[in-house]
Amino acid sequence: MSKDKRQMRLGAILMEAGHHVAAWRHPRAEAHRVTDVRFYQELAQLAERGKMDLVFFADTLGVPNYSSFFDHNITIRLEPLTLLAALSAVTRHIGLAATATTTYNEPFHIARLFSSLDHISGGRVGWNVVTSALADESLNFGRDTHMAHAKRYDRAKEFVEVVTGLWDSWEDDAFLIDQAQGRFADSGKLHTLNHQGEHFAVRGPLNISRSPQGYPVIIQAGSSEEGQELAAQTAEVVFTAQPTLARAQHFYASLKGKLAAYGRAEDELLIMPGVFPIIGRTAQEAQSKLDELQELIHPAVGLDVLSRKLGHDISGYPLDEPLPDLPESNGDKSRNHLLLDMARQEGLTLRQLYMRVAGSRGHQTVVGTPEQVADHLEEWFVQHGADGFNVMAPYLPGGLEDFVNLVIPELQRRGLFRTEYEGATLREHLGLSRPANRHAR
Amino acid sequence: MSKDKRQMRLGAILMEAGHHVAAWRHPRAEAHRVTDVRFYQELAQLAERGKMDLVFFADTLGVPNYSSFFDHNITIRLEPLTLLAALSAVTRHIGLAATATTTYNEPFHIARLFSSLDHISGGRVGWNVVTSALADESLNFGRDTHMAHAKRYDRAKEFVEVVTGLWDSWEDDAFLIDQAQGRFADSGKLHTLNHQGEHFAVRGPLNISRSPQGYPVIIQAGSSEEGQELAAQTAEVVFTAQPTLARAQHFYASLKGKLAAYGRAEDELLIMPGVFPIIGRTAQEAQSKLDELQELIHPAVGLDVLSRKLGHDISGYPLDEPLPDLPESNGDKSRNHLLLDMARQEGLTLRQLYMRVAGSRGHQTVVGTPEQVADHLEEWFVQHGADGFNVMAPYLPGGLEDFVNLVIPELQRRGLFRTEYEGATLREHLGLSRPANRHAR
Ligand SMILES: Cc1cc2nc3c(=O)[nH]c(=O)nc-3n(C[C@H](O)[C@H](O)[C@H](O)COP(=O)(O)O)c2cc1C
Ligand SMILES: Cc1cc2nc3c(=O)[nH]c(=O)nc-3n(C[C@H](O)[C@H](O)[C@H](O)COP(=O)(O)O)c2cc1C
Repeated sequence: MSKDKRQMRLGAILMEAGHHVAAWRHPRAEAHRVTDVRFYQELAQLAERGKMDLVFFADTLGVPNYSSFFDHNITIRLEPLTLLAALSAVTRHIGLAATATTTYNEPFHIARLFSSLDHISGGRVGWNVVTSALADESLNFGRDTHMAHAKRYDRAKEFVEVVTGLWDSWEDDAFLIDQAQGRFADSGKLHTLNHQGEHFAVRGPLNISRSPQGYPVIIQAGSSEEGQELAAQTAEVVFTAQPTLARAQHFYASLKGKLAAYGRAEDELLIMPGVFPIIGRTAQEAQSKLDELQELIHPAVGLDVLSRKLGHDISGYPLDEPLPDLPESNGDKSRNHLLLDMARQEGLTLRQLYMRVAGSRGHQTVVGTPEQVADHLEEWFVQHGADGFNVMAPYLPGGLEDFVNLVIPELQRRGLFRTEYEGATLREHLGLSRPANRHAR
Repeated sequence: MSKDKRQMRLGAILMEAGHHVAAWRHPRAEAHRVTDVRFYQELAQLAERGKMDLVFFADTLGVPNYSSFFDHNITIRLEPLTLLAALSAVTRHIGLAATATTTYNEPFHIARLFSSLDHISGGRVGWNVVTSALADESLNFGRDTHMAHAKRYDRAKEFVEVVTGLWDSWEDDAFLIDQAQGRFADSGKLHTLNHQGEHFAVRGPLNISRSPQGYPVIIQAGSSEEGQELAAQTAEVVFTAQPTLARAQHFYASLKGKLAAYGRAEDELLIMPGVFPIIGRTAQEAQSKLDELQELIHPAVGLDVLSRKLGHDISGYPLDEPLPDLPESNGDKSRNHLLLDMARQEGLTLRQLYMRVAGSRGHQTVVGTPEQVADHLEEWFVQHGADGFNVMAPYLPGGLEDFVNLVIPELQRRGLFRTEYEGATLREHLGLSRPANRHAR
């Protein structure tokens, strides 16, 4: 194993019972522990045992409000930033990342929370900047409708500017703590932001010192043109859903290609698609594991997923008959057509159709032995489809145990993944440099 | 010691280096650890060793923006909610409370954060509802001026209504987690808030289950008429600064008297004034400890405090000469006059004057042996001045060590304070009942 070999980055996305839509019904999931902090502490420790770069928690500020969804899905979770703080106390190395939307938050709060987390964790925190995938969030923040896509990204851009500006309030060496002379800080190294923009007016300064990483690692997870532009300008890690290597390669090349315009090098931004691995001792065992999970999809959940994808409520139609004729919907046309064509051509019933699309939520699915999974990841990694992966275990903790116990040792044997943590901070794990304070001379 | 004897409640206010204005310069303070989470973890463990009810972190969303303040004072701190989460992981019993203002926050975020903390800590969390003492906070949230006092309290009232409404989104027994049937929750036990008010429109529901305490304990720390009214209606604990027993008794009787109008009993609200204890083996040793601290007040800090209290910038005047003639200010008139009269009557220099007022920040100061401190607390407690106290150690950890090691055993010997935790939650420590969900039948 060569020390200089390019290293794969690995994150673990920790979604309550697991990533599969029916995860919570699986015997190796622990659905009753969904709000038990110890569950996530154990998962973070497991990922740390695997020397993974980070654990990540997605977030939405609410739930789509229809009762069948509440009946059959997990719609409750711990708030991710308080959760990360609790995880920091029982882990030592692993990075800790979570989503906070720029659409229904204030930059002063977000700057403070992440800076504080970076201090508390000794420099292990990452912020996933999103503009809110869930339109219903608006209703919890005094707005009748979701802010428009372009405006959300406009706001996001200014939001990140304000946040990084606040993170630079204090230079790294501003604190003298000279007890004898009574000088705590050198106010010459304090910089008041005085931001006046289109979306925000924030004077500053931030009431916390610059954090161990300078800035917490900035992650971005939007894939639209605007999302990629924001990422090219500000993000250091990009999370993305790419179903095939070809599409991943296209996305990878296109996004890396945008960096130069912002004066950035290609290795200043890491692209980490999600991967949904089903691991067995044999390929056949892996396939049966997937089948077992698929069988657990409650018909109401399957139909819900189809209704949302088709833009029509199809919950009234018989499960084991072919898809009925549906009028044009006003949803995402190309996606509807793909689905409709698939159903028609293969003569699928509703049940067969939702079995095809409800499982992995758009991420690449890899079903096989540890070697096969490692082959797959290595191929994407070497063929410029990815700098690393977000492991979306089908169920938790079982699916992550499989990955850590079986796939990671294989990647290590191939010299693709670390066998020990070498750095202390998340930036160091990821090979990202620590940003200098913009005011420092 | 009788089991039935009324028990004193004790909280520890953890202010960075300590409560005294010059704390950070004291040899028994640890000013270099002001953003070190382990410092607070050790303090919380110390308070837990003393079987105290809770630790508390005050908060402001910014700092008054003048450079001498930054030079000589601690103006940085960890964000308190992430800090509480980190403390929960290394403590088992002690309550964990912090401030969150209703003036520059959104109720959905606050409901979620505290509910999550209550889950994470196993039911040990308290929320100090304030309306923001620091006018400058407005400037970090897009407002030129601080919201007016009456409007702040109006908003606070509605804010608390929304938050408790969100906390009742799910009934306690709403989660079936029936893997075989695929039913995670009973949506019949889910209640969407649909709040439409003057300050907020919040649909809900909250995306987290009802927390161990039902509601985190609600604390209030405003003492104006509006503050007391809000407390009488919604608070379960009141923090207050009372310099003398007579004033404490008046406040106590007046606030308890307001409860009946809201259909509440007197023991549903606990009044906990702050106490600033300086403890020595002899009364004289205690006095020298206070003198030592007072000597550490940097003249610039002392003059700052006077300038703010007088509503005039007096930083240009000589320290060791009497107070100059000052024109009328537009600040708090009665407070100015008290101060001016004191200075004139006793012929105090500026230095002497700030030594009188800059130390304990308006709270009762008790200087003496452990027995004398215990006598003082017992008197206030028995004479209906207090249900308990917030200990504001002059410096940390030293001052809290003194209190835990010397005063608490004395209170325990007198049967006034627990020798073991009996309950699991903060509510149980405080003798407060768990609120039922408003929707439960
Ligand atoms: C791995 C991954 C994680 C994501 N996490 C979140 C999340 O936590 N919250 C959210 O609102 N959106 C999340 N998203 C969605 C995107 O951030 C974004 O909202 C969506 O892609 C639409 O933005 P776009 O129009 O730029 O693609 C995530 C996406 C990916 C690929
Ligand atoms: C023990 C104690 C703690 C307090 N903590 C805070 C705090 O953390 N943040 C804040 O803005 N005000 C805090 N206050 C101030 C009050 O909440 C309130 O803002 C102030 O008393 C003015 O309100 P009033 O006009 O009702 O008295 C605290 C007061 C006391 C007595």
